Amino acid sequence: MDFINSQTVGAKFQPSLTSSSHSPYRFLSSTTVAYSPSSSTMAPPVTVNSINPKVVECEYAVRGDIVILAQKLQEEIKAKPSAHPFEEILYCNIGNPQSLGQQPITFFREVLALCDHPSLLDRNETHGLFSKDSIQRAWKILDQIPGKATGAYSHSQGVKGLRDAIAAGIEARDGFPADPNDIFLTDGASPAVHMMMQLLVRSENDGILCPIPQYPLYSASIALHGGTLVPYYLDEATGWGLEVSNLKKQLGAAKSKGIDVRALVVINPGNPTGQVLAEENQMEIVKFCKEEGLVLLADEVYQENVYVPEKKFHSFKKVSRSMGYGEKDIHLVSFQSVSKGYYGECGKRGGYMEITGFGADVREHIYKLASVNLCSNISGQILASLVMSPPKVGDESFESYGAERDGIISSLARRAKTLEDAFNKLEGVTCNKAEGAMYLFPRINLPEKAIKAAGEARTAPDAFYCRRLLTETGIVFVPGSGFGQVPDTWHFRCTILPQEEKIPAVVTRLTDFHKRFMDEFRD
Amino acid sequence: MDFINSQTVGAKFQPSLTSSSHSPYRFLSSTTVAYSPSSSTMAPPVTVNSINPKVVECEYAVRGDIVILAQKLQEEIKAKPSAHPFEEILYCNIGNPQSLGQQPITFFREVLALCDHPSLLDRNETHGLFSKDSIQRAWKILDQIPGKATGAYSHSQGVKGLRDAIAAGIEARDGFPADPNDIFLTDGASPAVHMMMQLLVRSENDGILCPIPQYPLYSASIALHGGTLVPYYLDEATGWGLEVSNLKKQLGAAKSKGIDVRALVVINPGNPTGQVLAEENQMEIVKFCKEEGLVLLADEVYQENVYVPEKKFHSFKKVSRSMGYGEKDIHLVSFQSVSKGYYGECGKRGGYMEITGFGADVREHIYKLASVNLCSNISGQILASLVMSPPKVGDESFESYGAERDGIISSLARRAKTLEDAFNKLEGVTCNKAEGAMYLFPRINLPEKAIKAAGEARTAPDAFYCRRLLTETGIVFVPGSGFGQVPDTWHFRCTILPQEEKIPAVVTRLTDFHKRFMDEFRD
Repeated sequence: MDFINSQTVGAKFQPSLTSSSHSPYRFLSSTTVAYSPSSSTMAPPVTVNSINPKVVECEYAVRGDIVILAQKLQEEIKAKPSAHPFEEILYCNIGNPQSLGQQPITFFREVLALCDHPSLLDRNETHGLFSKDSIQRAWKILDQIPGKATGAYSHSQGVKGLRDAIAAGIEARDGFPADPNDIFLTDGASPAVHMMMQLLVRSENDGILCPIPQYPLYSASIALHGGTLVPYYLDEATGWGLEVSNLKKQLGAAKSKGIDVRALVVINPGNPTGQVLAEENQMEIVKFCKEEGLVLLADEVYQENVYVPEKKFHSFKKVSRSMGYGEKDIHLVSFQSVSKGYYGECGKRGGYMEITGFGADVREHIYKLASVNLCSNISGQILASLVMSPPKVGDESFESYGAERDGIISSLARRAKTLEDAFNKLEGVTCNKAEGAMYLFPRINLPEKAIKAAGEARTAPDAFYCRRLLTETGIVFVPGSGFGQVPDTWHFRCTILPQEEKIPAVVTRLTDFHKRFMDEFRD
Repeated sequence: MDFINSQTVGAKFQPSLTSSSHSPYRFLSSTTVAYSPSSSTMAPPVTVNSINPKVVECEYAVRGDIVILAQKLQEEIKAKPSAHPFEEILYCNIGNPQSLGQQPITFFREVLALCDHPSLLDRNETHGLFSKDSIQRAWKILDQIPGKATGAYSHSQGVKGLRDAIAAGIEARDGFPADPNDIFLTDGASPAVHMMMQLLVRSENDGILCPIPQYPLYSASIALHGGTLVPYYLDEATGWGLEVSNLKKQLGAAKSKGIDVRALVVINPGNPTGQVLAEENQMEIVKFCKEEGLVLLADEVYQENVYVPEKKFHSFKKVSRSMGYGEKDIHLVSFQSVSKGYYGECGKRGGYMEITGFGADVREHIYKLASVNLCSNISGQILASLVMSPPKVGDESFESYGAERDGIISSLARRAKTLEDAFNKLEGVTCNKAEGAMYLFPRINLPEKAIKAAGEARTAPDAFYCRRLLTETGIVFVPGSGFGQVPDTWHFRCTILPQEEKIPAVVTRLTDFHKRFMDEFRD
């Protein structure tokens, strides 16, 4: 971090006017040259042709064309309620539960409000407004924050006391130790994923194994950092199964092309595919990563979203530790977020990654990357600690908290089942079960005539279907092409998040639309 | 955003197993190759030699070696109070006011608490606990958020109603129109700066003109995105003056080396240098950027931190509009943050950038970059709207708010003056006035013997001084080498943030240390 003159010791170099290959950043020499202020030498204005092509190439479908159209229609309805044949836009494009009416967990919000305005804790009226344990918890959290200053930058990894709580939560979940120094709190899981891609990707010769279909954060992040996405297909026929033989095949193919594969992304429970991995399957994956020296990037943000009794979430950390693999055996990063689960606190931008198996020197660089953005937001940090240490038996809020949590999860399970059944009743549509996460990813066998019409409209067949669905019903799905799919198969992603009382209307509108669509295009 | 089969229309391509130069991301072909699972072909484990060299090269001094040492000493004091010859670490390394005891503005925190836990608004007790206008403002903000859902992802640019309030605040500040669609809310100013660097930097042949000394976010971000920092020196002798002739010279030098200079960074008020630019100077800068087709990246996060009556903050937007330059004349980005000003809400991670002069197609890509991280945290968004639309005459909180604000600003002004005077009394030290921002950047004329001792300790002379200061007094400064400085000159950055009652002790400890240091090393 300290630069010194090369004359003095020669080991490090001060950033100076002389360019040096050892300079900590490319620092241009200032050899004086006559200045020629003429518009002929003027830099061209900033256009799409002169911005970073990696930015231009990157795609992000869950906020893409269809969603922009939906926002436009919504504004038209606002201006003129009869503008379209529906009263509202139903956003099934993104896992954003509270935007569709899901209520936040009361205890979490009580604690956040008290930490935001700690002088409430000195007032008598507060006891009438807040639960006893929320007040206790707020005190505890404030005591963990240096100077009780919720408005101060924290340690770059996040407040140490909050990381202690998260580590304790991980230990309780897994039955294996967790180290608070392995936790990096982030503004949601997305910045954590970017940080790891930035660390691992050096050039287009570096590859990241990603599932297809995948959550487009991964393709976007790999594109932005200039790496190569090495795809492995999930098997739709076996409920989006993840075959290690397929991983091996794709890794071999990548190597034969000179790609240095750095990491494997696994999303469990799956997004957009909703499958929950079996523990034996996870063990094979861990073994594969260990053998191949791959970093295992485990997207575990849906760890609380499991809807079928026959499946259970197991963290990759637990699985690898239970196989006897420790710090020295495998590089493992687990991502968690406050945006998902039963809490669904997307707007709070809280999350963390737990990093194990990296050497101290590499971790220093991860710490530096975290430091360049100073720290993640403290409310999000507090919430991340709360979701990993919710009320316990004996706490005043325990029962109401449990009722809120179970109500949300069981309702999500019912909604997933109802929508799955509805999709499977549609002509030419098949839909795997959502065992977990917040999505269904049905496959649609589109008639040739529809594919031809899409071609004429210069759009992908699945996007053609989704666009028609939106303009006729107000329902927003994301076309499968945004996630990747086996060529010449078509899908769309639909969240299970519309409120339960709205699900029948969604099913009716979708079913009627689908019939009309098929009647129009059936071969 | 939609990909379609090349067979169908040939215009866009579906991400498929076949690699294609038109693919939206580098998507590896899956030609099957025999898998050879052997540790001889195993990828090497992740080491410093196999991570992204841009990450390794990037430096970030305000959280660098000295700060890591300070944290270590703090833990030692916690374990054993007599471990060091001081009772506490005094962090003057970073603009983090609330970590040193500055209290948040009450009105802002009231509104945040109510928005975090909106059910408070339905309770009678709330009226006894909160000001009338904070309750009204919370209602207004909740009405602006779709579904009143503060836990939902917002529009990628931020909640529209909050952007309306910010645009109105900019208009009131500048006297020129502001468009809410030009506002991008971000988790503090740092992610906004990264976003612009990511957009503008294509390769090491792209340069960004940056002041030296500079806030190391800029050098770090340019390094991470692989560009070239083109330095222009601020003139210490004229109070860190910014000479446009110098900009022209450095631009010419960069061009002659084949560097395509994309943007000019100006930090006003200055960090680490504390100067406030004169309006005439700003006009020259605007004209220069217009003539040269450079994006003007205006870091205006210290816009509320001006301490001298003879200087006033003028936004570059106001200056350029008052010169008659509109959207078509200049690419201008202004960064603002909730972390600075009199509010100092660093932990909330709120901020925005106002982007003008970019075409609709380029803005679409900026929107996409914002979308990949979904949105910034909603509390930070709310706070950004509040700092740009604080209580007004007639509001219940107006007086107490004004008293809190003025108390903080006038105290900062006194602290800046006291520290400036103290530095100027030290042997071999000269210090420009802090007209604004939160820092002093004194120059220290180190004796040859100290420079030699630093060389022997393999550290930079200014870092050597700062390290000695820390270990002997507990005071944390950042060495000037972390910000850049004229070669063979030495500085350090000191914040003006220690609470006023602690300033005399800081001055005494510093003065005593400095005398000892000079006695030891005086030539």
